[in-house]
Amino acid sequence: MAEHKLRLIPLGGLGEIGKNMIALEYGRDIVVIDAGLMFPGEDMPGVDLLIPDISYLVERRERVRGIVITHGHEDHIGALPYVLSRLQVPVYATRLTSELISVDLKQKGMKGEADLKVVTPGSKVQLGDLAIEFFAVCHSIPDSVGLIIHTPQGIIVHSGDFKLDHTPVLGEPTNFSQLAALGMQDVLLLLSDSTYVELEGFTPSETVVSEALDRIISAAKGRVIVTTFASLISRIQQVLDVAVKRDRRVYVTGRSMKEIVKMALRTGYLSAPAGILCNLDELRGLPHNRVIILSTGSQGEPTSALVRMANRDPRSQVQIMPGDTVVVSATTIPGNEALVSKTTDSLFRQGARVIYDKLAKVHVHGHGSQEELKLLLSLVRPRFLIPVHGEYRHLCLHADLAESMGMSRDRIFVLENGDVLELGPDAGEVVARGDAGVVYVDGLTVGELDDDVLRDRRLLSRDGVALVSVAIDGESGRLAGKPRITTRGFVGAEGEQTLVEKAEDVVLAALDHDRRRISEPGYVDARVKDTLSSFFYQRTRRRPIVMPIVVMIGKDRKEARR
Amino acid sequence: MAEHKLRLIPLGGLGEIGKNMIALEYGRDIVVIDAGLMFPGEDMPGVDLLIPDISYLVERRERVRGIVITHGHEDHIGALPYVLSRLQVPVYATRLTSELISVDLKQKGMKGEADLKVVTPGSKVQLGDLAIEFFAVCHSIPDSVGLIIHTPQGIIVHSGDFKLDHTPVLGEPTNFSQLAALGMQDVLLLLSDSTYVELEGFTPSETVVSEALDRIISAAKGRVIVTTFASLISRIQQVLDVAVKRDRRVYVTGRSMKEIVKMALRTGYLSAPAGILCNLDELRGLPHNRVIILSTGSQGEPTSALVRMANRDPRSQVQIMPGDTVVVSATTIPGNEALVSKTTDSLFRQGARVIYDKLAKVHVHGHGSQEELKLLLSLVRPRFLIPVHGEYRHLCLHADLAESMGMSRDRIFVLENGDVLELGPDAGEVVARGDAGVVYVDGLTVGELDDDVLRDRRLLSRDGVALVSVAIDGESGRLAGKPRITTRGFVGAEGEQTLVEKAEDVVLAALDHDRRRISEPGYVDARVKDTLSSFFYQRTRRRPIVMPIVVMIGKDRKEARR
Repeated sequence: MAEHKLRLIPLGGLGEIGKNMIALEYGRDIVVIDAGLMFPGEDMPGVDLLIPDISYLVERRERVRGIVITHGHEDHIGALPYVLSRLQVPVYATRLTSELISVDLKQKGMKGEADLKVVTPGSKVQLGDLAIEFFAVCHSIPDSVGLIIHTPQGIIVHSGDFKLDHTPVLGEPTNFSQLAALGMQDVLLLLSDSTYVELEGFTPSETVVSEALDRIISAAKGRVIVTTFASLISRIQQVLDVAVKRDRRVYVTGRSMKEIVKMALRTGYLSAPAGILCNLDELRGLPHNRVIILSTGSQGEPTSALVRMANRDPRSQVQIMPGDTVVVSATTIPGNEALVSKTTDSLFRQGARVIYDKLAKVHVHGHGSQEELKLLLSLVRPRFLIPVHGEYRHLCLHADLAESMGMSRDRIFVLENGDVLELGPDAGEVVARGDAGVVYVDGLTVGELDDDVLRDRRLLSRDGVALVSVAIDGESGRLAGKPRITTRGFVGAEGEQTLVEKAEDVVLAALDHDRRRISEPGYVDARVKDTLSSFFYQRTRRRPIVMPIVVMIGKDRKEARR
Repeated sequence: MAEHKLRLIPLGGLGEIGKNMIALEYGRDIVVIDAGLMFPGEDMPGVDLLIPDISYLVERRERVRGIVITHGHEDHIGALPYVLSRLQVPVYATRLTSELISVDLKQKGMKGEADLKVVTPGSKVQLGDLAIEFFAVCHSIPDSVGLIIHTPQGIIVHSGDFKLDHTPVLGEPTNFSQLAALGMQDVLLLLSDSTYVELEGFTPSETVVSEALDRIISAAKGRVIVTTFASLISRIQQVLDVAVKRDRRVYVTGRSMKEIVKMALRTGYLSAPAGILCNLDELRGLPHNRVIILSTGSQGEPTSALVRMANRDPRSQVQIMPGDTVVVSATTIPGNEALVSKTTDSLFRQGARVIYDKLAKVHVHGHGSQEELKLLLSLVRPRFLIPVHGEYRHLCLHADLAESMGMSRDRIFVLENGDVLELGPDAGEVVARGDAGVVYVDGLTVGELDDDVLRDRRLLSRDGVALVSVAIDGESGRLAGKPRITTRGFVGAEGEQTLVEKAEDVVLAALDHDRRRISEPGYVDARVKDTLSSFFYQRTRRRPIVMPIVVMIGKDRKEARR
């Protein structure tokens, strides 16, 4: 019999595809599942990345027993450098995942500071009253696992990111028999991936991609440039396999791709026959129909290898030539559409032929479709379901799917980040609502940015800024010089001069109108803002941010001069 | 025999889906085809819309005989208010298209100023040496036409935006026999729609959508809210038809939707049995299963009716209730993905079920797929082909498609906006390259914004702005007061105070270091920028725009005081 309540607190990954993190709490023990990051949307200018708000964990730091990681994608490991600097707890991950975490920590200058513990599928770790067992799942990166968590109150199954590919290129297929055996027992709760719940049927196997790549590469008369995610190691293996078969050599470009290929070859996750990979000198000596180039840049990232090629960047090691075939073996992550579209068009302009997902089956994704989600549910037969990992609509659709299979709606919890779910044997209840926010990482600062700053940035980008400097003689309380205005991002150089001169006169006249109030605190500021905002709007129908700045002179003049 | 050279100059719509405009020039005559606008991407903050650069036409204004419009979508008519204010020429369009142009001109305060001439499919107008014949094509708006242009040098066919729906809901199917008859003659050139060249097969008929709508609406237990493009009149008719069949009444919301429905009912493009449409009071009295609401907002536009519902905006006439079904009967226009996704999630959060294109066939698009493009080419059998209307990759893929049908590559021209193509009977040549740019419309100004302003706006939004005011005593050439700094969009309020105080000291010290140079023109400006930029970067790894402003006092103090 359970003494304590089982609590589950999603801190990220619900209602969004990214920054996955769930806390599981029983009595004195908290276990954290995943610690991912997310990249900002266009409405968050200047923000480098988003990480979960871990205040809940920090407030209970002495009870956090460890962080368990399901796989090595950034949306599951990327927040670790930030989280580990505030929570010194061990991290449990499979071998490849640990390697990727180490690479990331090293890049952030935190090498050796993490207590990384390597686990294998089938192994089990005891964290306080919670025992975590790892089972193999197939996903778009090898060494992915799901979790079977034994709690005093029952068994919790977490699917991780998964699909049911029976013929994966690398790594193990999803361990069905272990899941089926669980179904014989009494599983309290299933947390299941919702990302591709919109798609009917089964997600195609990776072998579909092998076939498409082989067809394209064997038909190409010139060089073939394949771009994919650097972490999509199985895709890289597929390209190496086709290269062997079609007698081409492979050149790898792009910093992160090079690094991951190196690591994966060293650790045995990639295998390449001797002489398949080539260096830049060798590349230049090869006939075009003996070349494959593997490159980063599938998301149109401005500094990636592919985008440099597309833009004829002189720093690029590879130049696009007419006759090149570019294969985009990736899906476009929502938000990157414009960059990807621009890159594709630039490659066509350079004379390349680009083959992307709309034109051929050059990519399959790593998440299960409807039939796979149903199969998991049928096998595991949990009392409760929490759809995880998806936009809010995906969670709802996943709930509908489960309901259509006969699951009662009150046993399905569509949660939001920060909700605290308390789970009994027969019922669950959200005892606190959505308190977890998001932490912005921008430059060196973590969590200092707030929504006000982002709002200002959006306003600045809309109509620019007009800056007004007013000098006031502190002794006489009068204007000490004509107000000066300068603008950025507001009007073009042509329009600016006349508009600004006129605006300066308008400010002068406005302040002159009630000159005795000039020395009142706040008066000049408010008057300048009002006057200029309406003047500019009237003239241009735009609303630049007006920033007055008042310099007091005289009183502190001596101090200034020293 | 032709005396002059036939010239074709695309001014918009090539390498982009939007702002369509092509000029056709023969001797002393220029005819313009379409005059569309385009909405800006996220990388053009604050810009309202983009229109073609018509300098080429303005420089030759006395030779422009008229503007011929293929259909009433904004990407084909939206630039007319701006173009007609610089070029007073007649505009030829079919009836519905003319009505939509009138609505647009009226909204822009230009009613009655345009010389609008209504044409019908099958009619012909003579514009100088060029004779334009209109033929019906099926597209997602009724009264769409393609053009057959008789020139002294041969026949040019322009497809307009088209598909080959044999069972359209409204309007005529594409006129095959006329096209086939043309193929018997000698067609010089075909300009053909490339938007959906990526898709194999044929575009499904609108009837597919009728079936899906009927299935969804008859199954719904509560209200059904259908959102689509305001101009998609045939879709609105489909909804009215299902309403009749399923005994529901229809309430129309959203300013542009209301206006277009009113106009279309008046002109007979929509037919609604008496009592089908209802007003707000009637709506509130109806049982939920007798209601359909037709709404704007399919693109997640922030001020649209649907988004107001999704956000529980108190100004909204309709509130979402659990049990509502929302049908998004539209495709997401590239660039709007994030807004649409957010709206869908908000609707789910309010308890609605949302059905969109990934879940059911609730939309078909209005452009032909590969087989339709091939069919047109086979029927018309032109000597030359120019793929139009599409991103650059679409133009290239369309060229590939034609080549795969046996057309010689040197007879296919993949052009860029501003290219000047000279066409002889057996060969064509681009005699000038890509001179046409884009004109930004922002507030009241047309064409005043330049790329520098947009670059500044992007920079401002990235790390914000730091404004530095320095007062200098004009007589002594010394600082007259401590420099003052204020920031926006840079750091949060917490961080700002200490950082700014320190920064003010840093500026003071820097200027103090070489105080004799303070009165040198430009010295203070450059010194402040350098000092602060590196100070801020070092402290925050961010690069706000530093804007110094120098107020000279003393010399002109008297003038300021008057």
